[in-house]
Amino acid sequence: MIKVGVVGGTGYTGVELLRLLAAHPQVALQVITSRADAGTLVSQMFPSLRGYVDMPFTHPDQAHLEQCDLVFFATPHGIAMQQARVLLDAGVKVIDLSADFRLRDIAIWEKWYGMSHACPDLVAEAVYGLPEVNREQIKTARLVANPGCYPTAVQLGFIPLLEAGVIEPAGLIADAKSGVSGAGRKTEMANLFSEAADNFKAYGVDGHRHLPEISQGLAHVLGGKVGLTFVPHLTPMIRGIHATLYGKLTRKIDLQALFEQRYANEPFVDVMPTGSLPETRSVRGANHCRIAVHKPQGGDTVVILSVIDNLVKGAAGQAVQNMNIMFGLPEATALNNVPLLP
Amino acid sequence: MIKVGVVGGTGYTGVELLRLLAAHPQVALQVITSRADAGTLVSQMFPSLRGYVDMPFTHPDQAHLEQCDLVFFATPHGIAMQQARVLLDAGVKVIDLSADFRLRDIAIWEKWYGMSHACPDLVAEAVYGLPEVNREQIKTARLVANPGCYPTAVQLGFIPLLEAGVIEPAGLIADAKSGVSGAGRKTEMANLFSEAADNFKAYGVDGHRHLPEISQGLAHVLGGKVGLTFVPHLTPMIRGIHATLYGKLTRKIDLQALFEQRYANEPFVDVMPTGSLPETRSVRGANHCRIAVHKPQGGDTVVILSVIDNLVKGAAGQAVQNMNIMFGLPEATALNNVPLLP
Amino acid sequence: MIKVGVVGGTGYTGVELLRLLAAHPQVALQVITSRADAGTLVSQMFPSLRGYVDMPFTHPDQAHLEQCDLVFFATPHGIAMQQARVLLDAGVKVIDLSADFRLRDIAIWEKWYGMSHACPDLVAEAVYGLPEVNREQIKTARLVANPGCYPTAVQLGFIPLLEAGVIEPAGLIADAKSGVSGAGRKTEMANLFSEAADNFKAYGVDGHRHLPEISQGLAHVLGGKVGLTFVPHLTPMIRGIHATLYGKLTRKIDLQALFEQRYANEPFVDVMPTGSLPETRSVRGANHCRIAVHKPQGGDTVVILSVIDNLVKGAAGQAVQNMNIMFGLPEATALNNVPLLP
Amino acid sequence: MIKVGVVGGTGYTGVELLRLLAAHPQVALQVITSRADAGTLVSQMFPSLRGYVDMPFTHPDQAHLEQCDLVFFATPHGIAMQQARVLLDAGVKVIDLSADFRLRDIAIWEKWYGMSHACPDLVAEAVYGLPEVNREQIKTARLVANPGCYPTAVQLGFIPLLEAGVIEPAGLIADAKSGVSGAGRKTEMANLFSEAADNFKAYGVDGHRHLPEISQGLAHVLGGKVGLTFVPHLTPMIRGIHATLYGKLTRKIDLQALFEQRYANEPFVDVMPTGSLPETRSVRGANHCRIAVHKPQGGDTVVILSVIDNLVKGAAGQAVQNMNIMFGLPEATALNNVPLLP
Repeated sequence: MIKVGVVGGTGYTGVELLRLLAAHPQVALQVITSRADAGTLVSQMFPSLRGYVDMPFTHPDQAHLEQCDLVFFATPHGIAMQQARVLLDAGVKVIDLSADFRLRDIAIWEKWYGMSHACPDLVAEAVYGLPEVNREQIKTARLVANPGCYPTAVQLGFIPLLEAGVIEPAGLIADAKSGVSGAGRKTEMANLFSEAADNFKAYGVDGHRHLPEISQGLAHVLGGKVGLTFVPHLTPMIRGIHATLYGKLTRKIDLQALFEQRYANEPFVDVMPTGSLPETRSVRGANHCRIAVHKPQGGDTVVILSVIDNLVKGAAGQAVQNMNIMFGLPEATALNNVPLLP
Repeated sequence: MIKVGVVGGTGYTGVELLRLLAAHPQVALQVITSRADAGTLVSQMFPSLRGYVDMPFTHPDQAHLEQCDLVFFATPHGIAMQQARVLLDAGVKVIDLSADFRLRDIAIWEKWYGMSHACPDLVAEAVYGLPEVNREQIKTARLVANPGCYPTAVQLGFIPLLEAGVIEPAGLIADAKSGVSGAGRKTEMANLFSEAADNFKAYGVDGHRHLPEISQGLAHVLGGKVGLTFVPHLTPMIRGIHATLYGKLTRKIDLQALFEQRYANEPFVDVMPTGSLPETRSVRGANHCRIAVHKPQGGDTVVILSVIDNLVKGAAGQAVQNMNIMFGLPEATALNNVPLLP
Repeated sequence: MIKVGVVGGTGYTGVELLRLLAAHPQVALQVITSRADAGTLVSQMFPSLRGYVDMPFTHPDQAHLEQCDLVFFATPHGIAMQQARVLLDAGVKVIDLSADFRLRDIAIWEKWYGMSHACPDLVAEAVYGLPEVNREQIKTARLVANPGCYPTAVQLGFIPLLEAGVIEPAGLIADAKSGVSGAGRKTEMANLFSEAADNFKAYGVDGHRHLPEISQGLAHVLGGKVGLTFVPHLTPMIRGIHATLYGKLTRKIDLQALFEQRYANEPFVDVMPTGSLPETRSVRGANHCRIAVHKPQGGDTVVILSVIDNLVKGAAGQAVQNMNIMFGLPEATALNNVPLLP
Repeated sequence: MIKVGVVGGTGYTGVELLRLLAAHPQVALQVITSRADAGTLVSQMFPSLRGYVDMPFTHPDQAHLEQCDLVFFATPHGIAMQQARVLLDAGVKVIDLSADFRLRDIAIWEKWYGMSHACPDLVAEAVYGLPEVNREQIKTARLVANPGCYPTAVQLGFIPLLEAGVIEPAGLIADAKSGVSGAGRKTEMANLFSEAADNFKAYGVDGHRHLPEISQGLAHVLGGKVGLTFVPHLTPMIRGIHATLYGKLTRKIDLQALFEQRYANEPFVDVMPTGSLPETRSVRGANHCRIAVHKPQGGDTVVILSVIDNLVKGAAGQAVQNMNIMFGLPEATALNNVPLLP
């Protein structure tokens, strides 16, 4: 059994992580921390966990995280980078669901996140936890930077095209739509039901923190710079990301075969049949990314549709997938739940 | 392994049944029938099942249901009663998720469902599949009438009070609210998104088919007639039933203790702590019924709040629970998935 | 032209009041105050008002409200009672959309609102602004206490029955459902989209501030005490209240005729034809209350369905209706907009 | 007074048209036709119209449309082209909200709409009713082809750029999102609440009927061919279209000034301040199109955000705007209602 600790269990990625870990046959949940809610039963805050998670939140100071085999950080940005070193030094593996270790260029990180980075050397060591790209490195990683939700959906859609060198890397467009849970369990005006329901809007058009993360990932697989316009939108649903990706083809190729071959052995990337229109609900609650490839009107613009559940493949599910890889377990352990439809 | 057939797999109870059966370790899914969609891959209609259910719908005439150990009917009313006898005669057990075998009084059934009943004798044999009341009979049943969604939520809320004889049985009120999936996967105007979203309404105030079913069940546990006013409402969510139940107390009693004791050994009825306000999402995708007991302002009116997922404890989950009981399996097999929140 | 000031224009009742006042031919909007947002253009916060309301929020200290003919308070509880006297002394009429002047019993008010009342004598003077009951007093009022949203929907449903003396006043039940905007534009966890969407729950079962307000109003028309159980629920829509009301009839009566006669001359109460099932969307954005009367199964329980838009007839619209009455204008001025459906 | 007839009043554009016409001071509504619902009160089908529209639906054969001054067709495609000539010959003006007269190239129309066109010569005469482009021709038109919803939002966003010649016309991308009412009041599976709620998907990626309409309109203002990739999406809200438009700039220009000047005299196009993020709810129920201009990261990709209410500026509101122009009325008559927010 893997002794697991969760730092910051009161947000949406936190409760989703607990949902998945509660059903994991190899996990012994040791401690779930919360500074503000220490002492409260986790299942009092989240009655969905009644009967599954019966412990209270523990104050970080009493958490004894160093006794765990693995600690997940489901915290706001800036926390994990303060605490990771002590844990790693104690031999504890760390998966950080926040952005602290995602950007390799410290200056870029500091610009987008508005604070000084506490441990640049750990950034260098951290492995970006996108198994479809970095599975081998994840196996032996001590510290995994779990990807963001938009970056997961967008990268998985563009990767086959960039690896194959069949699109112009300078004019990529990612028009992405997210459910409101992507904004976190934060009491901000824009996240209110009466603000977000029956409404649709773009945000972060002039700059979103996931832009440098996506650009870095795409540049990595391309082996060169990409030019990306990324426009995220808020859509009135709870879970789900739908990324609509546009690129200009530079040569003829069987796009369907390209994608099917690239992801043939990936347990969580589903290349749908030609002509498919993936719906976000087809992955609700599940770790799958479903992708469809289109070339409208026979032109040279390729349109990729990529959907994930932002809280699963876009956060907690991918974190469990990384854990499974790091501990040598079958990769789909505790991740085989069928999506909830309708 | 239990060889299972599903008749009518294209509705919401059908796809939900498939979600649960696909994860059931003792079930070998043999056949899923659909007259209209025979030949279509089940996962083409419901992409959420890709990788989990890989067979096509089979035309009823080619289904060979008699080779199954158990057949579920997830069909409109009037189908199961036509086909149950042949299956039972062939030694196949039957769980009917429709209403064909729920009402013991044939005349009442025929009045509310507007057709002649095809096999009144099987009605007499059928066991009403509410495990919290009829577990022993279900164990040996050949034919189980799976309860309706409203009847499950309402009965579980009233039963302890009626069994204990602490409320006036003549003036019961059940004000129930259902998500739209309760209306089925039917192309009716009222079920359109643009009709049902951002809207709330009552329906069936002057008579709903679940009224006689609830009355029958409550009369059964009381051992006498009940007077019930049942008002169902449509609320703009996909899944979930919230029943708000009102009764007049006839004597002082520790209501919380009454409910806790009644359901102490029930795996799927969760009596929440005093003062709780159960939310439908706390059971989303799960087989639980969560109940809270209130006595507002210290008066003599008791208010019971009872929530279920109409497609799980209110349909497919309860059907699997009944199957587990009928086949001597641990009752929670394949029903231990944690609710999806948010 | 009536010179109008609005105190507290940043909440939902505030912006709704501005929507209605902007279209009012007899209103000259003088000032809209906000302590936190002084200087910000109103239309920057609410782009829906671009082109209709072109002034900034004014700090309360610079508002010169005493130069208005009428001031609306769309503020949290406890503000209007601090400021009303000065305005009244300056000859300004006041309509308070908060609860400060709704409860005539100061002790009850202080118990439910948790503070000392600043001006009990004004409570005695204030007229409860339900035109269907108090139209004559409103005409000459200096200070109107605009009713709460639930109280409006519930009272209009029960009034004809209580006035006619045809139901038992001791066992009234009001099962009410509200859209989330009823909770105000407040950054509280329960109001987040990801908490409130696709979810249904009761709240305030053991005591809600609108209970004493409803009880007071019903006792007023009855001329005696009523016993009321009031259970409010949160439903995932933005606007709308649906009250389902239950009472026990004490004698035979033509209920439809009773309601039609009672409201025959009311411009904003629509008694729908027998058998109707009013939907909240049928009053979306409009000042109407639609009511349907049912007597299920021919029993002695009467079921009244009453729907309003909580922000219009339940708040801002009723306030404008009161203003029209106070200033001798046609009662429907600026309130004749057709509901928005779908 | 303009004597107005409405053909096909049972859909969403129909009921929206009635909402607007009921409040129009110069309109005398003569007749509303429906073949299936003749005899039914309009307000029985749409209770929101109770007190505003008190006539029944009339069977087309009894409609005497030739006695009207103006007839609106709010019908499925293929109806208006059968009936327009007779009306025009009788001196009746016609505004067609369907697509029958939108595409000037008959062959293209017949390909996309799958039927033969009944009156190609009237297509030649018809004026495309986008006032921001064709106001002068609309003034004297007998027959107006009211634009589609997507085409309105997309064209208004691209027009200033194409007219100014500052983007490459070959690589335009329109990523558009629509509320479900855009699919009409049709009982199709995909439009069910339980299918469309809490879900997001693209559709029509390989070809949507609005693509040739948009291309025609953009080519018209450019004076040359455009290359457009158009991907529509279904988002879980009732009303609203959000078009996110991408183009490659060919030279430096003050984009904000360009848009402000282009639409300076347009009553219904609101160019928002730099940096704005228009929300669909900011135009809910109103005839406005709100536009914001972005140039992310200082690159050469321009991003235009354009929102409308698909049933108003995208259908019924624009039709009334066209009527006002055709009959010499102030253009905003009956279109000055403030958007409904929240």
